[in-house]
Amino acid sequence: MYQSIKEEAYHCNMQLPKLGLVLFTFGNVSVADRSQGVFAIKPSGVPYEDLSVDQMVIVDFEGNIVEGKLRPSSDTKTHAVLYKHWEGIGGITHTHSTYGTAWAQSQRDIPIFGTTHADHLTTDIPCAPPMSDEMILGNYEYETGFQIINHFESQKLDYKEVEMVLVGNHAPFAWGKTGIKSVYNSAVLETVAQMAALTEQINPQAPRLKDALIRKHWERKHGGEAYYGQE
Amino acid sequence: MYQSIKEEAYHCNMQLPKLGLVLFTFGNVSVADRSQGVFAIKPSGVPYEDLSVDQMVIVDFEGNIVEGKLRPSSDTKTHAVLYKHWEGIGGITHTHSTYGTAWAQSQRDIPIFGTTHADHLTTDIPCAPPMSDEMILGNYEYETGFQIINHFESQKLDYKEVEMVLVGNHAPFAWGKTGIKSVYNSAVLETVAQMAALTEQINPQAPRLKDALIRKHWERKHGGEAYYGQE
Amino acid sequence: MYQSIKEEAYHCNMQLPKLGLVLFTFGNVSVADRSQGVFAIKPSGVPYEDLSVDQMVIVDFEGNIVEGKLRPSSDTKTHAVLYKHWEGIGGITHTHSTYGTAWAQSQRDIPIFGTTHADHLTTDIPCAPPMSDEMILGNYEYETGFQIINHFESQKLDYKEVEMVLVGNHAPFAWGKTGIKSVYNSAVLETVAQMAALTEQINPQAPRLKDALIRKHWERKHGGEAYYGQE
Amino acid sequence: MYQSIKEEAYHCNMQLPKLGLVLFTFGNVSVADRSQGVFAIKPSGVPYEDLSVDQMVIVDFEGNIVEGKLRPSSDTKTHAVLYKHWEGIGGITHTHSTYGTAWAQSQRDIPIFGTTHADHLTTDIPCAPPMSDEMILGNYEYETGFQIINHFESQKLDYKEVEMVLVGNHAPFAWGKTGIKSVYNSAVLETVAQMAALTEQINPQAPRLKDALIRKHWERKHGGEAYYGQE
Repeated sequence: MYQSIKEEAYHCNMQLPKLGLVLFTFGNVSVADRSQGVFAIKPSGVPYEDLSVDQMVIVDFEGNIVEGKLRPSSDTKTHAVLYKHWEGIGGITHTHSTYGTAWAQSQRDIPIFGTTHADHLTTDIPCAPPMSDEMILGNYEYETGFQIINHFESQKLDYKEVEMVLVGNHAPFAWGKTGIKSVYNSAVLETVAQMAALTEQINPQAPRLKDALIRKHWERKHGGEAYYGQE
Repeated sequence: MYQSIKEEAYHCNMQLPKLGLVLFTFGNVSVADRSQGVFAIKPSGVPYEDLSVDQMVIVDFEGNIVEGKLRPSSDTKTHAVLYKHWEGIGGITHTHSTYGTAWAQSQRDIPIFGTTHADHLTTDIPCAPPMSDEMILGNYEYETGFQIINHFESQKLDYKEVEMVLVGNHAPFAWGKTGIKSVYNSAVLETVAQMAALTEQINPQAPRLKDALIRKHWERKHGGEAYYGQE
Repeated sequence: MYQSIKEEAYHCNMQLPKLGLVLFTFGNVSVADRSQGVFAIKPSGVPYEDLSVDQMVIVDFEGNIVEGKLRPSSDTKTHAVLYKHWEGIGGITHTHSTYGTAWAQSQRDIPIFGTTHADHLTTDIPCAPPMSDEMILGNYEYETGFQIINHFESQKLDYKEVEMVLVGNHAPFAWGKTGIKSVYNSAVLETVAQMAALTEQINPQAPRLKDALIRKHWERKHGGEAYYGQE
Repeated sequence: MYQSIKEEAYHCNMQLPKLGLVLFTFGNVSVADRSQGVFAIKPSGVPYEDLSVDQMVIVDFEGNIVEGKLRPSSDTKTHAVLYKHWEGIGGITHTHSTYGTAWAQSQRDIPIFGTTHADHLTTDIPCAPPMSDEMILGNYEYETGFQIINHFESQKLDYKEVEMVLVGNHAPFAWGKTGIKSVYNSAVLETVAQMAALTEQINPQAPRLKDALIRKHWERKHGGEAYYGQE
């Protein structure tokens, strides 16, 4: 019944170590089936080399376990909140990738310095501030989802255009229409994060990318007359 | 009819992930056949693991597609302009390699600090300034080629001696007599870029290489009495 | 008689090159059998590719060799002192991993900047000061163990909660209930060390993690109502 | 007649890409047979994947080719000078490894910050100054050997205790009693160079290692009562 999203979630999770985005079990991917109102997510703390399709846990958008013998990722409620409130997303990836996490710990947005960044989004990669003590002591992972959503609202960001965020002091989350797109966005974030740190090291006065280039690179990949890729 | 350059272009493109110069599809190599006035280039957005020889797209030096079922790389017009105006080059490589891109984002030339650099060129690696809004909003990839050519002219650089450039805010381009030489130059640029960033970190007052060493290393590899390599 | 810990020690040592934590023979893991009062440790200077189970050396908690044809790791006495005084540990890993060693050479504690760190310990990763000349000229490796223990006592740290340390000017040691847990902690230390160095590079004023987040992340992984992992 | 050193030189050269010390052909190892007054060295510009034992070139200590169909490494005369004047060495490795080269370009000695360094030498890793224009325009590679030897003499360094050097603006050379020891020393230099750069980044006021620790670590590995390794 949930075989398709379990296979997809398994496949997506296995990309994380291949792309060098995780150490041990520090990451998780989920894939949603909106027609059934559920998502499949990695079980908590299971090493990637031991992972199998049937270990994926099925959870609904309230965070309730629907099927599965293992406990789901400890970040499951964050995934549930994002799926519930952002209806256009079909997959979410969370990692503690090295450079993305260092920017999150620095509590800074990643400045848009070049076209590698502009090929994927037209703004800085936003860093949501660390959560309040009330949110942390309350339903923590649930509130992490709201911290992301609230930050997007206060900054007037559109989750369909900006498919990634840093949670201050914590680490990156990325999403997309599919699970594999969210994995792709996680890898893009890590590369852009490394390039931005190096750019500031090489030239502390490096300017942001000019508006015309930002718009151009976004449009050639995502605009109505996009000509990147095969469709 | 174009089998030879298609095979060569395929082979060259496959070197990019092996050399760690690309993430996903962020790069492309083309190989020219000057007798036929065309070049073979990677199709746009096709992952390296799915690439095959017959997917290579044949394009003429005006940027028109001559043969191929897939859309060519979105950077195709930049390749076309360079082939058209610089008659001595047979291959071009474009990547978003990490250190080269960070220098491009920093909008700085890469200073010549040592013999690793001088073995390959006698000047700093030039960084062309970001393009004007008119160029960006016009025929962007076409103008990127002219931005490179104009910068070489204004700086009195010879494309046969300086086989690489950074496009400000964007990323590196490299070229050479053959496709594989352009791939080689891309890898050299990335290594030299990393060494230069580290050199400035270790010694912010590090001096440029002295003239006598620049000339010596160039001549032993490229001069009339070169004695590096086997011919 | 000691077959089980020899196999475990062999297996743990072989993880070090796989995890990128050692160059050549710059590291060692030991595994204790408390019922027999001994531990198995890597022989000194043997390359990982030549290592075998029966080369593991059996040593008691005073540092005396009990069984084995080869000389044990030169750091054996440090392991013996830690096993003797800290009865709750079953495995110890010592490496010269790149970032951990750089922090040790910097003689600084690694600040707790994020949840990756807080998932594993609630304090900065302590750096014991370089040893006195008397300790160095005396029974050096034996005294290294005491330097670690004394630093934990003076800083009121609990070795069951803080399972890792930097020895100033030297390199990291990590431990745990089992050998594989100590290897795991060594890899965590290296990753956290790299993230912390990058965090300070990106934002020299980066603040420490707030208390509520430190407590939350520790408790969800290690507290009475922990919900990370499968038990 | 020279089969043994040709095999050894081949084996040693093949370690360089495995250890991540070279890009393309940017490195070479030689192995000497002192009874015959010759050494075997890598041919110039041959990629490692195409290298074979019988391509190794036999050269005498004056730099004359004794046997071999290919042109020897362009650095051959530097090797010859070192073998001729330093009778205790049996192997030499030259690389353009990333961190070692960055320090050479920085024209700074690598400070002794920790025991990883002190396990191998008791002084900073010396950086010979860039050569004079006369030396460069004269017999360049021959003079590079003298630049190294002269620097050791002026600094009162013993090549048997300090088995590595940076040539300012150029890159590292390392040597040892055997070819494989010189390869080992090249890898140690690269790791120590990376750790030192990170140490200064983390703590710009990081102090040098104290004398007692320098002596202790050297003696436990190399002194009369050394107890590191198996003999």
